[in-house]
This record gives sequence, structure tokens and C-alpha cells, in this order.
Amino acid sequence: MIQISDTTLRDGAQAEGISFSLDDKLQMVREMDDLGVLWIEAGNPGANPLDASFFQAMAKQPPLRFAHLAAFGSTCHPGCPAEEDSALRVLSSCQADLKTIFGKSALRHVLQVLRCDPAENLRMIQDSISFLRKEGNRVWFDAEHFFDGWRENADYTFSTLLAAEKAGAERIILCDTNGGSLPDQISEAVRQLRERLNIPLGIHCHNDCGLAAANSLAALNAGCGLVQGTLCGIGERCGNADLCTLIPLISLKLGLPCLPEGHLSRLTHVSRVASEIMNIAPNESAPFVGDSAFAHKGGMHIDAILKDHTTYEQVDPETVGNQRRFLLSDQSGRAGIYARLGRFLPDLNRDSPEIASVVKRLKEMEADGYTYENADASFELLALDTLGRRPGFFHVMDYHVLSQQEHGGKDAQAYLKIEVNGREGINAAEGDGPVNALDLALRKTLAQFYPSISNMRLKDFKVRVINSHGTASRVRVGIESTDGIHLWKTVGVHENIIQASLKALIDSVDYMLTRYVSEREIQAASVIE
Amino acid sequence: MIQISDTTLRDGAQAEGISFSLDDKLQMVREMDDLGVLWIEAGNPGANPLDASFFQAMAKQPPLRFAHLAAFGSTCHPGCPAEEDSALRVLSSCQADLKTIFGKSALRHVLQVLRCDPAENLRMIQDSISFLRKEGNRVWFDAEHFFDGWRENADYTFSTLLAAEKAGAERIILCDTNGGSLPDQISEAVRQLRERLNIPLGIHCHNDCGLAAANSLAALNAGCGLVQGTLCGIGERCGNADLCTLIPLISLKLGLPCLPEGHLSRLTHVSRVASEIMNIAPNESAPFVGDSAFAHKGGMHIDAILKDHTTYEQVDPETVGNQRRFLLSDQSGRAGIYARLGRFLPDLNRDSPEIASVVKRLKEMEADGYTYENADASFELLALDTLGRRPGFFHVMDYHVLSQQEHGGKDAQAYLKIEVNGREGINAAEGDGPVNALDLALRKTLAQFYPSISNMRLKDFKVRVINSHGTASRVRVGIESTDGIHLWKTVGVHENIIQASLKALIDSVDYMLTRYVSEREIQAASVIE
Repeated sequence: MIQISDTTLRDGAQAEGISFSLDDKLQMVREMDDLGVLWIEAGNPGANPLDASFFQAMAKQPPLRFAHLAAFGSTCHPGCPAEEDSALRVLSSCQADLKTIFGKSALRHVLQVLRCDPAENLRMIQDSISFLRKEGNRVWFDAEHFFDGWRENADYTFSTLLAAEKAGAERIILCDTNGGSLPDQISEAVRQLRERLNIPLGIHCHNDCGLAAANSLAALNAGCGLVQGTLCGIGERCGNADLCTLIPLISLKLGLPCLPEGHLSRLTHVSRVASEIMNIAPNESAPFVGDSAFAHKGGMHIDAILKDHTTYEQVDPETVGNQRRFLLSDQSGRAGIYARLGRFLPDLNRDSPEIASVVKRLKEMEADGYTYENADASFELLALDTLGRRPGFFHVMDYHVLSQQEHGGKDAQAYLKIEVNGREGINAAEGDGPVNALDLALRKTLAQFYPSISNMRLKDFKVRVINSHGTASRVRVGIESTDGIHLWKTVGVHENIIQASLKALIDSVDYMLTRYVSEREIQAASVIE
Repeated sequence: MIQISDTTLRDGAQAEGISFSLDDKLQMVREMDDLGVLWIEAGNPGANPLDASFFQAMAKQPPLRFAHLAAFGSTCHPGCPAEEDSALRVLSSCQADLKTIFGKSALRHVLQVLRCDPAENLRMIQDSISFLRKEGNRVWFDAEHFFDGWRENADYTFSTLLAAEKAGAERIILCDTNGGSLPDQISEAVRQLRERLNIPLGIHCHNDCGLAAANSLAALNAGCGLVQGTLCGIGERCGNADLCTLIPLISLKLGLPCLPEGHLSRLTHVSRVASEIMNIAPNESAPFVGDSAFAHKGGMHIDAILKDHTTYEQVDPETVGNQRRFLLSDQSGRAGIYARLGRFLPDLNRDSPEIASVVKRLKEMEADGYTYENADASFELLALDTLGRRPGFFHVMDYHVLSQQEHGGKDAQAYLKIEVNGREGINAAEGDGPVNALDLALRKTLAQFYPSISNMRLKDFKVRVINSHGTASRVRVGIESTDGIHLWKTVGVHENIIQASLKALIDSVDYMLTRYVSEREIQAASVIE
């Protein structure tokens, strides 16, 4: 059993652009508990009033099912007795299951940053831990810059660990604070420590060399029993070790349990919810949990996957709650198309002539600048259209968009005329820029006929210029839409960005009406007076 | 000396959402050559007509300074003699310094995917390499799924390598095709091979476990002399080993040369230009080259860095061409800014207060969504503007842009009013989309005053959505312009794509007038009747 300690809410919060509100923190803790991590290092109450309120708020919440809360702080300062350090007193009195304090383990840092006597640093470590222990706390010691110190002056570094052990710390976390160590250096240091110390060890790595996962594994293999990291690998500079990578590595590659039985498949979900809460774009190519982690493009690869998925997949996507995707491209061929169509057209078989016609149409569209790799909904509509099965919900008869020099307020207006079952709808809207105005006008006009459309909103909007020839290049617009429950993606291509956006918007609305709106509402649209 | 082989244009092109035009490929090759990689695996000419044209186009280009081109292909198919395989013949005749072919090295893949006799697979490998050698090619063999094969049936896997060596391959690339191997497994396999084979080896890793960098290092430590990867780690699924991580690791951590002397500091620049060409958002937390890689947020960390930068930096940012950033109080960046300003403002010195004011302005603009990494002309104008030295050539007083449903012909019109030295110019144009219409109207109106503007045209136009919140997201437009002799790049940011484009267009015209139009023509603009 390897213990997982999540420090997203503490060290992860050092990342550029990341800040957690109290609500964010409470929600993140629930997600992590649901995933089943054992420890959540959730803040530094002595340094940050928000973190202090968080621990107070948690004390009033229903208990966590799997996780235990840790609060973080620093040793006392040079020349100051621990019991007089106000931050340490806040830490001691805060309602968390565990207190972690960090101290300097590298001699150079003691001399150049603390600028105190090396013996005084040992006193600070011992005194701070003793104080917390006397007050009845469980305590861990974070040995900051442990690996740098071990390479530069192992004796002094070792003496800081001894001071922590002697004072009653129950675990020491070895920190590669600058992320500059190599796996062999980590292994060797942990192995040497294991021979000289009995206290349980943990590992805390940063990703400045792109080696945080490898370094963490090296430490576990050499005898650490706990690994610390963050969700999505967020953290200062290049981030911390990514738990979304480490948890599957430990479970599936080392074969060691680290989550409650059956919880590994929650990982992809938790990683995406965490991205949402942190307001960062999910890393699509993230190992195990990324949207592209099990995406296959080349026809030869797809053909092989269909014969045996292990040929191009190192693990089964379902074990981590992710899914396989076949990217629709010129390269993917009939096998890939069939695998995709089968989901919504189960009546087709692999040799149906319909498959060939969809492949042909797809190639024409791709030659025209379309790509359906990231536009499942548009692909589905294209296939239905090719087979004469795409329903017609509405038709854009005319539109005009205006945009002008900014004079305060909205700088674009759109007028739109549509036809629904022989009836006309006309409406207008203003927006930030012509595409925004047209989007608002379209949804406003359609909601007269299909009320559910008012629940729809755009989640993401991407523009890519293709076959670039100055401003008259062709433009590909990708849109991600939601009705609050489902998510779907569409695409439009045109020389004119407004036309391209309109195509993607029309697909988006059509898809929602095809898949997520009741038959009754669709029927009703034809009898509106 | 470790050899670097870049496969961004071949294996990297398998990434979701990545496609290279011929121009993109030519530009990428120049950037990689400038960086100084030894090998560029640039395409699969037998499978992809665009790649075939690329090699033809390269043959007419000035020679590369450091890099050698490799073309990629597959062995012949079961039952087919190599000399009758049309793709192999295209590969053989293509003008590249080296031909790499891949073949199956894992027995399970031979049986389940190729579905042929294991001996026939050996024949295919040997026959294909012999054919290429007979035709006078240098040949490498890519052993697909080598590590999976080695774990499952090392004897058969070894026989595929022997077949390649015997047929005249000069190097074997060991591929962890599925990215599922661990560093120890890689080390052990390479070490065993090294004892049994004399042929030089290379390593090709994927990042499905987040271990591509560690696995590549493990292979180099165990005896591989070449490492393959991609810029920014792009590639299928979770990507390939990232050369922007590996090159510094090899140079700085292993202490082995892999680029020409002095070229490592070009790495950050090349990584960012590559992101631009690929139209992917640069990974801000990427090791070494990311914008956040040397960014410091915590006050205590900043204080320590100021005492000794090695306290929280594993390497000096300048060694890889990156820069340190303090997220709370900026004291850095001055040196980098000074280096850039010195080019066109030689009267400034490093301690001029002007430098500080430009740094401040730049930070404000960056907070607003601007990036000047690929917009030198806009940066120069921003600096001139900050120092009160930007000339005023014209002023846009008003504009209106219209766009409507297509009815054949142009679907957008722009009207524009400008002022030049107290005189007004009014004109209009139609175009493919609103931005194209506005661009044409602007240049038409300006050419009345500055005739040289009629020589100016846009070479490239890129759009990126930043801080995405549906269609009202902020948009960053990048424009590349030319007068037939010079090339320059500008940028504009706004919620409205038309405003953003106009900003970039205005910068582009201003830059041309500042740098490339005669004083006489500028003077004349004030006396036009």
C-alpha cells in the first residue's frame, strides 16, 4: 500500500494563475475524498487567513470518507522559541488530523537564505516539532531542498532529519524542491537513508526537468511509502508531480494499491472537474486522463486496435475512466469510420455501401479544410446528412452583421431571419464583435420555436486559419457547446469567419435538437401560432 | 556526443489537431537547423504526396547548415518483394540523406496485426533494407514495439534486429511505441542489447506514462547514442519525448554535448516559434522553455532568489534562452528587454530609466493578452510609443463593416475614414469576410497618401482565442506582412476579432512606414492636394 498525499490546495496554489476561493477548496476536498486519496494537505493557516477559515469550515462539514486533512506551516524563525511563533500556534490549534512543517535541510540555504548558525537551524526544527507534539499533534517534517543538500553536504542534511525524528515527527517528506534531480540520484539518496533511518519516508517532487513522475517512482522503489503531488500537476514553475499520472503508474505498473478498491476509474472525471474548478484548460495530452490519451489517428493504428486494443494502448482506457477515440481523418479509413458510426447507426454493418459514401464525403470535407477530430457532433450530422437522415429543424434565410469603431458599449449588431416549418422568425442582438452578436441573435430567434435552446450556451470557441493567404485565408471555427448536462463539439469552415462560425453554430443547435431535446418540443415547433 | 533526431514533422504530425502545410514544413526545418539538431525526420514520401513535394522543394533550397534530412517509410508488405513495393521505391528515390524504415519487432504484432508467418516478417525487414542499400541509400531501422516485444519474446525480437543489421542498416532505433515502459525496463533491455550487438542504437519514446524524458535518459545512460523526439513533445496520444526537455537534460545534467557550441540558448525561441507554426498554445509550465519555468510567486522564494538564484532554480534560465520572472515585483526582464531595444535604440544603455518604463508597459500589455514573442514589429512600435518616439502617420477616425448571407460574390464590405496630417481620406472595399474587406479598404485609403503601401501585402494571418468564454472571448490576431523584400510581424488583441485585426494591421502599416518607406515619400504625404 502506497499512501497518496494531495497538495493541490497548498503547494499547487503556488502555480501562476491559480487561486482557490473557500468554496473551491471545499469542493476540491470532496472530489479528492471521492477519489480516495489518503491525505489532503489543504493549506497554510498560519500564513493565510483564507486557509484558516477553510479548516474552521471543514470542522463543521460532514466527515470525509477516505481522506485525512493536513495543515502546513514553517518552523519557527531564527532566535525565536517555537511557543512564541504565532504562525506555529495557529497551526497547532487548527483542526486538522496532521500538521506538516517544513524546514531547511540544505546547509547552503541555512547560510545564504536564513543566514543563521547551522546549529540554530537544527534547534528550530527540533523545537518546532517538539512544541507541536507537546500540544498533541501528529507531525510530519518536510525536508526542503533535501536532495540538493544531500549532494552538497550529506552530513548536515542528515542531521536535520535526525533532529526531526528525535523531536517526534512520525514521517519525513524528502523534497526535490527545485525539481533538478535525476532518478538515479533520488534512488541512491533514498536507499542510503533507508539504511540509516527507521522513520517512514515520503517523496515530494517538482517537474522542472520533466522527471517528476520518474523521480517519484524511483523514490517509491527505493523505499518511500508515501508520494505527494497535485491534481493535473499544477504547481510553481513547471508544477509538482502529477497525481493523475502517478496514481495509475503505482496501481497499474508497480501493481501496488494506493486508492480504495475500484476507485481508479474515477480518476479521469476527478481530473476534469479539478481543471474546471481551477479554471485551467485540461491538458489534452496528459497521460492516462487526457482527452487524447487514447485517441488514434493513423488508419494502420486503428486497424490494429480493432484487432487487439493492446497493440497501441499501454493500458485499458476504462481502468482510469477514460475512453478510446478514433480520430476521423483521411488517414483513418473505413475501419475507423465504421467504429464511430456504429454508435449511432447500429443498423449498418462493416461492409455497408453507406460506410463508403461517408468515407468519400469525409474526404471531400477534409480537402475543403474541415477536420472532425475534435468535432464529434458535426461528424455525426455529416454522416446523417450523407445518408439522407439528418432532420431539418430550421433554415437561416438571411442575416446582416454590422461592426464599427468602438464608441463605448457593444460594437457589433446582428439581424437574423430564419424559417421553421414554413414560419419565419426575425430577431436581432448586439454583442462583443460580430460573431458574438450573431450567436446571440441566432439563439434568441430559435428559442421562440424551441424553448430548450435558451439553456444552451457556448463553452469554448476556437479559430484556426488554414491555407493561409493573408486575411482572405480560409478559417476553421470549432465550438464546444453545453446545455448544462451534455457537452458537444462542432466545426465550420469558410473564407469568412462569420460564415464559418455560423456553420458551426447551426451544427451545434441541430445536434442539440437531434439528441437532447424531447420529441414533444420538436413537434410543438410546427404548431406555434 | 549524443545525436539528436527530430521527428516533429513525421511522428509529431500524428498528433491530434496538428497538420503541416508545405510552407510550415520548410519553415520548421529552418528553425530546427538553426537550433542545430543533427537529424530531421521530415516525412513519409511514399504514403503522403505532400511529404514527397516537401523533399523535392528542399532539394531546391539552400543547403542546411547543421541538419541532415531523413525520410521515413515502412517495410514492404507480406508476400510482396521489396523492389515491387511502390512506397519503398518512392522512399528510395526521394532526395534525403537517410532513409528510415520501420518494421514489426514484436511477435504478437506479427501474428495479430500483420497476420503473417514470423519468418516472413524477417524476410520483409531484410529484403526492404537490402533493396534500399542496393539503391545506394543510408538506412536506419525503426524497431516498432521493441520494448513490448523484448518483454514478451526477446528471442524473436532480437532476430528482427539481427535481420536489419545483416541487411545493412547502420543504426537501429528502439521504439517504446505505446509509451508503456518504465525506466528500469528500458535500461535493462538496452544494456542486454549492448552486450549482444555492435550496431549503433537510438531511442524513441512516447509519453503515455509521463516518463518519456526519463525513459530516454535511461536509454542514453545504458548505451544508446541517439535520441529521437519532437519539439514541444507533440505526437500521437500523449505525445513523443520532448526535445525541449531532453536537449537541456543531456547538455546540462548529463554534461554531454548534443547541439553545436553556443546553440542551447536558442531553445526557448525555437520552441515558441514552433508552437506558433503548429498553432498550439505554448505549454507555459514546460520544463526549461515554458513561460512559467523560471517564474517565482512566493515572496520568500523571491527573496531567496535575490540572495542566490540557485536557491530556487535548478539551472540558469539564460542557458536555455529563457528568462526569470518575478510574479509579485518585477526586477528582471530588464536585461532581455535591453538586448532587444539595443537593436533599434542604440542610444539607450542598460540602466536607462527608459528600459524600466518599457518593461512596465510590456507587462501591462502581456496582462492584457498580448505576446510579442512572434511580433517583433509590434514590440518595436510599443517601445517607441512608450518613449514618445513613435511617429504618427495616420489615424483611423471611423469605420463600418458589413457582412451578410452569401449571394454569390463578395460577402463583406468595409467603409473607412482616416486622417493624415489634417487631411481626410475616405474609401471602401469589399472582400471575403469582414477582416479581408477592412484590410483592403485600409490599404486602398492609405495608398492615396503613401503610394508604397500598394506594394504591401499580408503573408500570413493567425487567430488565437485567449481566456476562452464562448464567442465573446478575447482574440489575439497575428499578421505577417511583406513589401516584397522585407518581412515583419505584428499583433493585436481585442474581444472583437475585427478590432484585433485592425490593431495588427495598423501596426503593420506603421512599421512599414517607419522602416521601409523613404523620408521623401513621408514628407510628400503632408503636401498632397
